[in-house]
Amino acid sequence: MRYSPLLTDLYELTMVAGYFEHAMHEVPAVFDLFYRHNPYRGGYAVFAGLEPALQYLEELRFNDEELSYLQGLNLFPARFLSYLEAFRFRGKVTAPAEGSVVFGNEPLLTVEGGLAEAQFVETALLNIINFQTLVATKAARINYAARGSAVLEFGLRRAHGPDGGLSEARAAFIGGVRSTSNVLAGMKYGIPVKGTHAHSWIMAFPDELTAFRNYAQVFPEHCILLVDTYDTLKSGIPNAITIARELREKGYELFGVRLDSGDLAYLSIKSREMFDAAGFPEVKILASNEIDEFVIDSIREEGSRIDIYGVGTRLATCAGEGGGALGGVYKLVRIGQNPKLKVTSDIAKATLPDRKKVLRAVDPHGNFVQDVIALEGEPIAPGDVVFDPANPLQRVRLPHDVRLVDTRTVVMDRGERCQPAPTLEESADHAARELNLLPEGSLRFVNPHIYKVSVSSGLNRLRLRLMEEVKRHLLATP
Amino acid sequence: MRYSPLLTDLYELTMVAGYFEHAMHEVPAVFDLFYRHNPYRGGYAVFAGLEPALQYLEELRFNDEELSYLQGLNLFPARFLSYLEAFRFRGKVTAPAEGSVVFGNEPLLTVEGGLAEAQFVETALLNIINFQTLVATKAARINYAARGSAVLEFGLRRAHGPDGGLSEARAAFIGGVRSTSNVLAGMKYGIPVKGTHAHSWIMAFPDELTAFRNYAQVFPEHCILLVDTYDTLKSGIPNAITIARELREKGYELFGVRLDSGDLAYLSIKSREMFDAAGFPEVKILASNEIDEFVIDSIREEGSRIDIYGVGTRLATCAGEGGGALGGVYKLVRIGQNPKLKVTSDIAKATLPDRKKVLRAVDPHGNFVQDVIALEGEPIAPGDVVFDPANPLQRVRLPHDVRLVDTRTVVMDRGERCQPAPTLEESADHAARELNLLPEGSLRFVNPHIYKVSVSSGLNRLRLRLMEEVKRHLLATP
Repeated sequence: MRYSPLLTDLYELTMVAGYFEHAMHEVPAVFDLFYRHNPYRGGYAVFAGLEPALQYLEELRFNDEELSYLQGLNLFPARFLSYLEAFRFRGKVTAPAEGSVVFGNEPLLTVEGGLAEAQFVETALLNIINFQTLVATKAARINYAARGSAVLEFGLRRAHGPDGGLSEARAAFIGGVRSTSNVLAGMKYGIPVKGTHAHSWIMAFPDELTAFRNYAQVFPEHCILLVDTYDTLKSGIPNAITIARELREKGYELFGVRLDSGDLAYLSIKSREMFDAAGFPEVKILASNEIDEFVIDSIREEGSRIDIYGVGTRLATCAGEGGGALGGVYKLVRIGQNPKLKVTSDIAKATLPDRKKVLRAVDPHGNFVQDVIALEGEPIAPGDVVFDPANPLQRVRLPHDVRLVDTRTVVMDRGERCQPAPTLEESADHAARELNLLPEGSLRFVNPHIYKVSVSSGLNRLRLRLMEEVKRHLLATP
Repeated sequence: MRYSPLLTDLYELTMVAGYFEHAMHEVPAVFDLFYRHNPYRGGYAVFAGLEPALQYLEELRFNDEELSYLQGLNLFPARFLSYLEAFRFRGKVTAPAEGSVVFGNEPLLTVEGGLAEAQFVETALLNIINFQTLVATKAARINYAARGSAVLEFGLRRAHGPDGGLSEARAAFIGGVRSTSNVLAGMKYGIPVKGTHAHSWIMAFPDELTAFRNYAQVFPEHCILLVDTYDTLKSGIPNAITIARELREKGYELFGVRLDSGDLAYLSIKSREMFDAAGFPEVKILASNEIDEFVIDSIREEGSRIDIYGVGTRLATCAGEGGGALGGVYKLVRIGQNPKLKVTSDIAKATLPDRKKVLRAVDPHGNFVQDVIALEGEPIAPGDVVFDPANPLQRVRLPHDVRLVDTRTVVMDRGERCQPAPTLEESADHAARELNLLPEGSLRFVNPHIYKVSVSSGLNRLRLRLMEEVKRHLLATP
């Protein structure tokens, strides 16, 4: 799929036109893409969307139709439209690997280039990274709640449009949900596709048993039967057991049943007992119906016997408190030789100026201890004093027994990728590994452990100095 | 854009394969697409997504890449894949016009055709209609709150992926939000595009006044200045007034300013006073920052002076209680000669069987009084007794002084559209007209008037009879 360069807010174009008219379009600039609060009131996020974002940057160019639409707006000078004809992204991008665990306030993407190109890509990068990171994080939470049971994603019908369903399946895979009902996602991303049948299948036949039998006949090796059309325990499970026997006579085993309504904990326990008693301990129980990490947690506590969770609406729409949208933003942090900061009355919201690196303190077992955001060239060592970004008076010392690991690399230089894209499988494995190295409490859903993200003394000093300058400038305003 | 036929849940394909293997794929079937509860706990929904849905149906066909992907799944027999090669949608679709006001339980789309084709299109139709109807409804609510002030949509950066932003702008336009920042939506749908500049524009210059002046120089006729980078009332507005004076000297008028943080009610009142006192009563005040219908309502009550609301995240993500997803479903209501119903333990959730019509009772002034869902051929007249779908004992009589208007028409027959697509403008005008004919209380956000949707006596009888049959069938199950 081609990302149109018009997939942007008009103000990116008016600003770029403005910079061009003032001959500032090639002034070197640095922007950071970051978010402030971890989504879902959780303890972390799983970074996703990098590969589509790099694809967007690599392929960025205006075609004739797009240029003539812009011309028709009667908003832009002709020489600016000629400039857009040759407009490409030739900048540099620094980012964590896709699937990395990240935290609020840390620069995710850092984009460096001429002011025009680095500004222009804001909207598309936010659109791609915000949504995919939000989904990957939700998927990681659901997968954590499932504690090793498989999770199947089938949210397409409630997703926000066709691509909402497609990017969602991709990002969910990175977050740990490794199968989908979305066939297009299967073809495009190689994600395993799974499925069963709907209630309408049952209703298309004279009775449930006939419907089950006819489905099993066509898909004897992949047969999952939906058992709640009439009554799960009185009708659905007994009929499914009949089919399981018939399949076994023909040399097949019934794969599973799906519960889609009622008390999933109770029904799964009873269904398990019925299958076990009938000699089918291997038949899998799949449960669905408005499932999310909280539902999984609570029904697991009641001793549910669910082998596969089918997750739709709440994953596809990133539902939940602190969900729905990731508040990622894109801020200018340096222009020409000048570090820049966006101030507000609240210091916690003032941005972190200049080119930076994100270092992760890792203990001798490889576990993540805390992160430090520092100036690019600033030497940082274990034992150094670091600061709370929301309160410069709060300082702590980094432990002495840690290694400091740079969490990001240059992924694009002069508009070209520095490495080939990892497979989606590799990104998902990376996420699983990193989630495993987090403090256990960071994975909790309610009041999680707050993983510390500090700023270095150099960055802290620069930030306070720039805030002072802004204050003086304001006082000097008549 | 082409909708891939693989934009579907795998189970649609397995079911179609099953029907094909059992030679049932051409059995005549009727499906209804409907939702149960109005979104956002509101009093109505604005139906949207019809035109993209019809485009999907018209263009539905599998290409070679898609067929060979399906073949590689090793799930489907070869003769079924040959059948898919020639698979088209040749059915009939009945629907309201896009932009119509609709309610829970009413069939929106009714799809008739062979069992295979009518079943197959479920996922894609739900994906398109669920999201666009949800957005159009949110947009209508926001537009109602704005009471005639303009609303500008700029949610692209927080939307659920590229298409999430694109379909969102389209549906929001139908709901009454008639401009967007999304340039691609401007090109594709002809929606007027609007924009200003970001904080980064201000930070790219030595000071705010210089930044404003440089922007105004490039866009003297379309100049909206973002005034909250440093301090709205001490710096932003005074500098904007300076620019307004400079523009006037050159024969231009400053179009407006944008407030993006702080107390929008207070700041808009003070800004208005300052512009009025300086001789600029025509300068528009645009406000943004997590705005939705509730924020607009409450700041309007405090006497805010806002001319244009900029709405982003909360519209793009359909945020709010009862938002996030429209729970639209797609149910088999008739197969062959048999009306069908999906039962559950809760009668309110039992579906409405058979081919139906939705009649709207309209009073002599044209206002909407209530809706009645009836069997297709059933004669219904003013004064008839009708029933509550959730409680068959509750009956009311239709008023005598109403006309009964069929809310839907056949929009596609034998796979071809019956009428040319209306323009987006026409659909938006239709929505505005219909919203205006609703009881005023239905537009309220909290505890709205419940617009009555009844079922006819014929439909009520059929439904009760089918429920009895299901009960007998269940009792007969060993």
